[in-house]
Amino acid sequence: MPVLVVGSIALDHIKTPTAEHHQLLGGSASYAAVAASFFGPVHMVGVVGDDFPPQHKQLFLDRKIDLTGLEVAAGQTFCWSGEYELNMNNRRTLSVALNVFETFQPKLPETYRETPYVLLGNIAPSLQRLVCQQIRKPKFVVADTMDLWISIARPDLMELLKEIDMLILNDSEARQLTEEDNVIRAGRKIATLGPRYVAVKKGEHGCLLFGSKGEFFSTGAFPLESINDPTGAGDCFAGGLIGHLARTDDISFANLKEAIIQGTLVASFCVEEFSLRRLEKLAEHEIAERRQAFGTYIV
Amino acid sequence: MPVLVVGSIALDHIKTPTAEHHQLLGGSASYAAVAASFFGPVHMVGVVGDDFPPQHKQLFLDRKIDLTGLEVAAGQTFCWSGEYELNMNNRRTLSVALNVFETFQPKLPETYRETPYVLLGNIAPSLQRLVCQQIRKPKFVVADTMDLWISIARPDLMELLKEIDMLILNDSEARQLTEEDNVIRAGRKIATLGPRYVAVKKGEHGCLLFGSKGEFFSTGAFPLESINDPTGAGDCFAGGLIGHLARTDDISFANLKEAIIQGTLVASFCVEEFSLRRLEKLAEHEIAERRQAFGTYIV
Repeated sequence: MPVLVVGSIALDHIKTPTAEHHQLLGGSASYAAVAASFFGPVHMVGVVGDDFPPQHKQLFLDRKIDLTGLEVAAGQTFCWSGEYELNMNNRRTLSVALNVFETFQPKLPETYRETPYVLLGNIAPSLQRLVCQQIRKPKFVVADTMDLWISIARPDLMELLKEIDMLILNDSEARQLTEEDNVIRAGRKIATLGPRYVAVKKGEHGCLLFGSKGEFFSTGAFPLESINDPTGAGDCFAGGLIGHLARTDDISFANLKEAIIQGTLVASFCVEEFSLRRLEKLAEHEIAERRQAFGTYIV
Repeated sequence: MPVLVVGSIALDHIKTPTAEHHQLLGGSASYAAVAASFFGPVHMVGVVGDDFPPQHKQLFLDRKIDLTGLEVAAGQTFCWSGEYELNMNNRRTLSVALNVFETFQPKLPETYRETPYVLLGNIAPSLQRLVCQQIRKPKFVVADTMDLWISIARPDLMELLKEIDMLILNDSEARQLTEEDNVIRAGRKIATLGPRYVAVKKGEHGCLLFGSKGEFFSTGAFPLESINDPTGAGDCFAGGLIGHLARTDDISFANLKEAIIQGTLVASFCVEEFSLRRLEKLAEHEIAERRQAFGTYIV
């Protein structure tokens, strides 16, 4: 089954304690679409400026991503610049230039509207809701969000929660959204606000999955000795998750657990190199090999 | 098989954001011995003052813990006073009075010396080493430690590592001991310093287990909506772990994984109430029930 991925496409400037890179392919849709492409066909919706480097577009094409919904607008591509601290957990945004993204309104090509599996990548909840209005009979809709939207667009986010099947956010965001200190209480509370499921990401500590009927699942991250760039890990997690659901066309809780693991694995490759450089050369059998090792790590 | 538990026995004064209690039963040996007692016979070694409340001793007797090795010295019992911050993760020591513990030298009764499973609870590594010199033909020796000993008794701790089968410490302590930022690298490094296995505790994020031959296991914590007193959770984890190993008399890596889970479960009960109050009324079938639920949470 195909996957629809909507989100941002960006040019990133990223600084870590050991390296610095410019004009990197970034954005929630870029990471998520490439991650999902390892599981099956992907339809992508997003906007880039007329400065978007052709090699970045080529990466999407190499991954056989359908770009019918990729809008090229006059002007510059969305730019994000950020810096990581030594522990690679704390990130500081140095600058943001929305550019063509400022007026972006996702418009779904007619051929996309019945895509059964939908990932609303991390963009403003009002834009995510615009996508919900254009899709027909989706089987499963996942939305990713972040602290910024909880702070400045809470009413939109609360409405969005009623329109989706699963919300993805990290542990501090879950606490922020619910004003609960305890992440278990926070996750369970969000699962009563609309979405049938809530995935709470905890970075190197893995992920928790909550269901509105009391379901619970917990998994660790794949053990990595070094992380070169954590950017996009959450987007790759979401992309791998929706990709697995679409490939198997199974939204049972048992299969959601496996989707969480598959998302975890794709994210584990993502952080090994800057931008999408690791995913660009990733082979499907490598995910399968890491899955086999992971099986022995968790049971 | 019986378990030998050596460590501190204390009277704790604990303050949390919502409550404060005095003269609580505490100390690494108290928590660990009671935790281990749910799995089989326990021999305990420690010292108390002549002020030690009889009801605390009665708790050990109720749990059928062998107190032949419990020394009663003239003077006051070791006292610890601490305060937890709102998130229950950060703890501040308000005062410590070593009292009779200051001159404590663990002396094993002859009947204890061939105990096959040994837990060296969190006390100075020089004292833990004194125990190693007194035990004969142990099958498996586990030592717990803490940041204080890494700071002030590193040479002793490094020697201890060569004499034990497993070290338990938390993630920040693993980083401190190895000067590695990455906890995976830290855990693997410790497993080359002597112990065959290293368990790295991560509180609400669960535990990682490393083997010196590259073995790895990761598990989450049992999901709890509220924590009333985290004191002793690590000691109960260690006690449950060694208790499970002794009960099953199996030190295979597969069974060590299960021991990590059993330790996790006993710790999950411990934090529900102050001191040993929850463990005091805990029934074995409750551990089994939580184990069954946990099985569905992790696979």
